[in-house]
Amino acid sequence: MKPTAAIYLDNAATTRLDPEVLDAMLPLMTEQFGNPSSIHSHGRTVRTAIEKARKTVAMLLNTSPAEIFFTSGGTEADNTAIRSSIETYGLTHAITSPLEHHAVLHTLEHLAKQGTIKLSLVTIDEKGHVDLGHLDELLKAHQGRSLVSLMHGNNEIGNLLDLNRVGEICRAHDAIFHSDTVQTMGHFRHNLQQLPVDFIVGAGHKFHGPKGVGFLYSNAERVKIHPFVYGGAQERNMRGGTENVYGIVGLAKALEIAYRDMDAHRQQITSLKRRMIDQLQAKMPDVRFNGDSADVDNSLYTVLNVSLPASDMSDMLLFSLDIARISASGGSACSSGSNVGSHVLAALPGFDSERGYVRFSFGKYNTAEEIDYAVDTLVGLYQKELVK
Amino acid sequence: MKPTAAIYLDNAATTRLDPEVLDAMLPLMTEQFGNPSSIHSHGRTVRTAIEKARKTVAMLLNTSPAEIFFTSGGTEADNTAIRSSIETYGLTHAITSPLEHHAVLHTLEHLAKQGTIKLSLVTIDEKGHVDLGHLDELLKAHQGRSLVSLMHGNNEIGNLLDLNRVGEICRAHDAIFHSDTVQTMGHFRHNLQQLPVDFIVGAGHKFHGPKGVGFLYSNAERVKIHPFVYGGAQERNMRGGTENVYGIVGLAKALEIAYRDMDAHRQQITSLKRRMIDQLQAKMPDVRFNGDSADVDNSLYTVLNVSLPASDMSDMLLFSLDIARISASGGSACSSGSNVGSHVLAALPGFDSERGYVRFSFGKYNTAEEIDYAVDTLVGLYQKELVK
Repeated sequence: MKPTAAIYLDNAATTRLDPEVLDAMLPLMTEQFGNPSSIHSHGRTVRTAIEKARKTVAMLLNTSPAEIFFTSGGTEADNTAIRSSIETYGLTHAITSPLEHHAVLHTLEHLAKQGTIKLSLVTIDEKGHVDLGHLDELLKAHQGRSLVSLMHGNNEIGNLLDLNRVGEICRAHDAIFHSDTVQTMGHFRHNLQQLPVDFIVGAGHKFHGPKGVGFLYSNAERVKIHPFVYGGAQERNMRGGTENVYGIVGLAKALEIAYRDMDAHRQQITSLKRRMIDQLQAKMPDVRFNGDSADVDNSLYTVLNVSLPASDMSDMLLFSLDIARISASGGSACSSGSNVGSHVLAALPGFDSERGYVRFSFGKYNTAEEIDYAVDTLVGLYQKELVK
Repeated sequence: MKPTAAIYLDNAATTRLDPEVLDAMLPLMTEQFGNPSSIHSHGRTVRTAIEKARKTVAMLLNTSPAEIFFTSGGTEADNTAIRSSIETYGLTHAITSPLEHHAVLHTLEHLAKQGTIKLSLVTIDEKGHVDLGHLDELLKAHQGRSLVSLMHGNNEIGNLLDLNRVGEICRAHDAIFHSDTVQTMGHFRHNLQQLPVDFIVGAGHKFHGPKGVGFLYSNAERVKIHPFVYGGAQERNMRGGTENVYGIVGLAKALEIAYRDMDAHRQQITSLKRRMIDQLQAKMPDVRFNGDSADVDNSLYTVLNVSLPASDMSDMLLFSLDIARISASGGSACSSGSNVGSHVLAALPGFDSERGYVRFSFGKYNTAEEIDYAVDTLVGLYQKELVK
């Protein structure tokens, strides 16, 4: 039986705003409406709220407020780290992987196309693991400083990168290391006193915070970059533009909740993911899982990338699920609107484009019943197909 | 007698969110939480809301939705127009004025400093009027295409630029014309079928919409620029990053209200401004007004820049007003936080730094009583000073 409301299994694309977060935002959308750069009382109230938010984020990540810069989202934060570090340090070489989010890949490809940098792609295996030996070789081969941008948790196949190992390799070669941590932020703990990274980023809406706001962590001991967005003196001269104050306050609140509830959250979601894996393995012939996503303890616990037997229906899979009131995705949301296939899956050696692919991604508002319905629907779609 | 709540006379810095706008935003902050790039029902609902907002903005400005790109604010929109047009067309020369907002000035200064462009400053007179003959000469003197960036309404002294004349001069020299219209958007009508501009911009929070959202108008017949923020396929491949959907919907609603109520709004605020001018002239010895701001029908009706007799109190003026519960500003909010004087006033020939300066800026929630209280407070402060 169809559910009364569509089931949301696309939490890697975006998450529902937590009502506690909305409550934290509303005072800034009503009475506390000043411009935080104004020195009068209307401004100071809002400035205080922003700086309190910055302290919260910094404290949770075990770093200093001076290293946290609010942006309009993860994409702007990635652009800032990449474009401004290349510009500030006059870098001519960057290394990334073909599995990165477009916020990283398209930015670097653009810089390579216009001749600013040479772009090297690190080799990956069929599970999507980055070849760290190759990374080391690429760094060795370049005279001068390189930028390395490798994501922490892959948004499509759930693979986790060992930030410590990659960071050490980068430091051994004096490279600048940026990691797109959008998918792990709020879901895993980041201890910035220990992590050997130069830049990491977050996007509020990936952990039940607001859209249109994110942040950049910039390691003050190692890097000092130009702004990306020029303008007023906001963010200590690092990012012009009147602050998205409700967004900033909401992001900090959402991260606070995420850290507060992280262990229970992880346990709940991991059990939903295991439930889906177990049921699919029991009911769906020749089901496979892309990347590490089925290795529940060693992947993004929020993401399961399912590979289904080749069939006439593969192309229509997401539409059929949508009709059955299940919201899931093929690739990342950021490219699905443009109707191109997943560049991540296509980049995996041995990728079989005939099979069907669905990324399910889970959040704290999902239930076991929803998982069961999704599995039964998927199995039902394939059974109809096999009977035909 | 002190008012119970501080009086807000800093509407050029930011405005109070209209409750009607908040009502339009809330569904997107609760039930309609999908990622607009997702193709399933959760995503499509939100996509529809964004495209409806784009149509609203386009319709009000008498242009096509394909020419409206949402950004994180006016500053990002200015950066996009400037940086991406210089990059896309390989421009080596830009012209601006010393009275521009830092979103324009700092961006161009940075590009000049790194050697990408030569930057020319057009001459201004002591009222802050741009010397259009000089603009013409500067354009003539440069071989090749120039970028001209001149603001429509000055946020500090209220001067209005004749966009038609400047646009015609630019076209005569095949220059690209960007105008920072942040202060006029929602307060004056822009008919983009007729205006000879290539780029104009808007920021939601300047017309009782949300912070953290703005837009860029890009003239499709004349310019086609690269993105500034690279990433996903959002905004038709022109601006990566998950959209600030509440912001976008709120901005459109606020602009709709602004257009709906514009005549009454202008009348109300103009009468408040006249009231302040009349009272100050009657009660304050040697009061003057900077720029065109006292020419009520030929300036931003929202802005009055008051110049007060030199006194020991000049430096403490804004603090004294704040203590008396009046929120006003010296320069723009974007720089006041950093405690530097106004670059706009300092750039006016004949500027007397010994005098006191206050920018009052008005909005639809201001009342005649508030104006009277502000004038009496200001006059009282100076009387105390004179009696000493």
